[in-house]
Amino acid sequence: MALTEFELIQRCFADQAGALARADVRLGIGDDCAIVAPCSGQELLVSVDTSVAGVHFPATISPYDIASRSLAVNLSDLAAMGAEPAWFTLALTLPEMDEPWLFEFSRGLFDTANEYGIALVGGDTTRGPLSITIQVQGYAPTGKALRRDGAGVGDLVCVSGSLGDAGAGLALVLQEEGDATDHLQRRFLAPLPRITTGLALRSVASAAIDISDGLLADLGHILERSQVGAVLQAKAIPLSPELRQAVGEDQALQHALSAGDDYELCFCVPADQVEKLAAIAAQTKVPICQIGVVTAELGLRVLDAQGQPMPLPAAGYQHF
Amino acid sequence: MALTEFELIQRCFADQAGALARADVRLGIGDDCAIVAPCSGQELLVSVDTSVAGVHFPATISPYDIASRSLAVNLSDLAAMGAEPAWFTLALTLPEMDEPWLFEFSRGLFDTANEYGIALVGGDTTRGPLSITIQVQGYAPTGKALRRDGAGVGDLVCVSGSLGDAGAGLALVLQEEGDATDHLQRRFLAPLPRITTGLALRSVASAAIDISDGLLADLGHILERSQVGAVLQAKAIPLSPELRQAVGEDQALQHALSAGDDYELCFCVPADQVEKLAAIAAQTKVPICQIGVVTAELGLRVLDAQGQPMPLPAAGYQHF
Repeated sequence: MALTEFELIQRCFADQAGALARADVRLGIGDDCAIVAPCSGQELLVSVDTSVAGVHFPATISPYDIASRSLAVNLSDLAAMGAEPAWFTLALTLPEMDEPWLFEFSRGLFDTANEYGIALVGGDTTRGPLSITIQVQGYAPTGKALRRDGAGVGDLVCVSGSLGDAGAGLALVLQEEGDATDHLQRRFLAPLPRITTGLALRSVASAAIDISDGLLADLGHILERSQVGAVLQAKAIPLSPELRQAVGEDQALQHALSAGDDYELCFCVPADQVEKLAAIAAQTKVPICQIGVVTAELGLRVLDAQGQPMPLPAAGYQHF
Repeated sequence: MALTEFELIQRCFADQAGALARADVRLGIGDDCAIVAPCSGQELLVSVDTSVAGVHFPATISPYDIASRSLAVNLSDLAAMGAEPAWFTLALTLPEMDEPWLFEFSRGLFDTANEYGIALVGGDTTRGPLSITIQVQGYAPTGKALRRDGAGVGDLVCVSGSLGDAGAGLALVLQEEGDATDHLQRRFLAPLPRITTGLALRSVASAAIDISDGLLADLGHILERSQVGAVLQAKAIPLSPELRQAVGEDQALQHALSAGDDYELCFCVPADQVEKLAAIAAQTKVPICQIGVVTAELGLRVLDAQGQPMPLPAAGYQHF
């Protein structure tokens, strides 16, 4: 017998939400509001993002990946601020109640939620074109969150992981080429929010952001908010072997500079803190590369191997 | 000269969000996350709701009303739990960047936000079919929030204001009949979240909910969660003179029982607390009516003037 709408939502979300017991969640799904009891001495970090089918992801990707990716993208905002994930809400707009689809969506959502220790405390399901709005909350000790506005002249510009993979992966996903399990496609479909890196950077970095719109655009936000500039060394920008092989060296660099969706962290580190980065990379098992330096001169320049400024592509993702 | 997308969002949202200074908001719009510092000794109430054009409201209503109503509907969830509004986020999905539309939307949003002292701390703007997801946060002293599961046998069942107006108002809005400023239409277009009533009920009511899906459906949630039943007196259900005049006595009662969107509160009050209700109604300037009693026998019955059980319509709003 088919489940009623209520039973389906109950099984896919409310029942599983209770699986992750957090002492700071006093009342979960099922009332007008959830009740949470924030830890004292901590500030709460709040971020909301909407993923619309056909805009932020191709409508063809699996419901598992849609859910997992939507939550990961939001977790990445917590990572960028050095916050520890706590709770989230889900507003899911669906064209129809498709039981297998919802079960797979739910599985992707809770696999990711449980991995990062974040509890679903509330939600809303509505009818309409497919779109997922997630709001995440996390903790950072008072005054310790990483912001965009703290970069200082002389700080090193660093990034986690490698850049450009997701941009090339998205192109493959859109062309429905190759295997959805290959490295580049997984980088787009299943980004890894750099939570442990963000937490470790809390006492080290002067500013941070996650790379959702491309390195140039996102580092640009740090520079603008901090009222500084930067010079990057193209050779130092980390490119994966898979990306170099798939698109060649030049195109790989263009992806790294301008394609979004990698959800790596870009951050600035004062010179006297730089020696801590190797230990952080080892502890978190996420590579960290120094790619440039913060300058008093405004603007963002990228130097080629000969030390000459490279022409830069138009920056970043335009939301409209 | 036309504003860029960034400038438009900045003017309509970020600039105005700063107008409401709250000591517990440490960093507002403009970084990966907002930073808030929850008051100690308080629990945080969290609720999220999506309003989709053509589903939750007719696409023809004004952008001012769309924004104001979307926020009011969320504030009503805080009212139902006896919470004091604190901050909210807005995820706005729009088919296009229409400057006059956005300015009006923004005006409606902040008129309501400022009236209830709730600060916009974050948001996301995406392209797609019109939909508004708002998450509200509010405070209640630890353990004092009103829940659905506390109703006890013998408690009085009460409602604020009058019921059924918004249902009749929606019918008029849909028919594009009469004047959008008339009482019934305003009840649909500009619901009044009963925040002050909710706060006053915190030490008085045993259970509460807001009426979004109709009295029968929403009171049904309280009864189910509290594992009790109730008997209501049809004659005691408050109907406005405007509603009686517009649709007649019988239809008015049907609207009151089954139409949603009134956003009044339905709550239960132990007999020894009932004498406090008159003072609360006077202080909040919102009428309170006793409409029935909580019973050990499960189920919900409505008695007519002769004390006979009335046949009840199918309950409430179906989301799918």
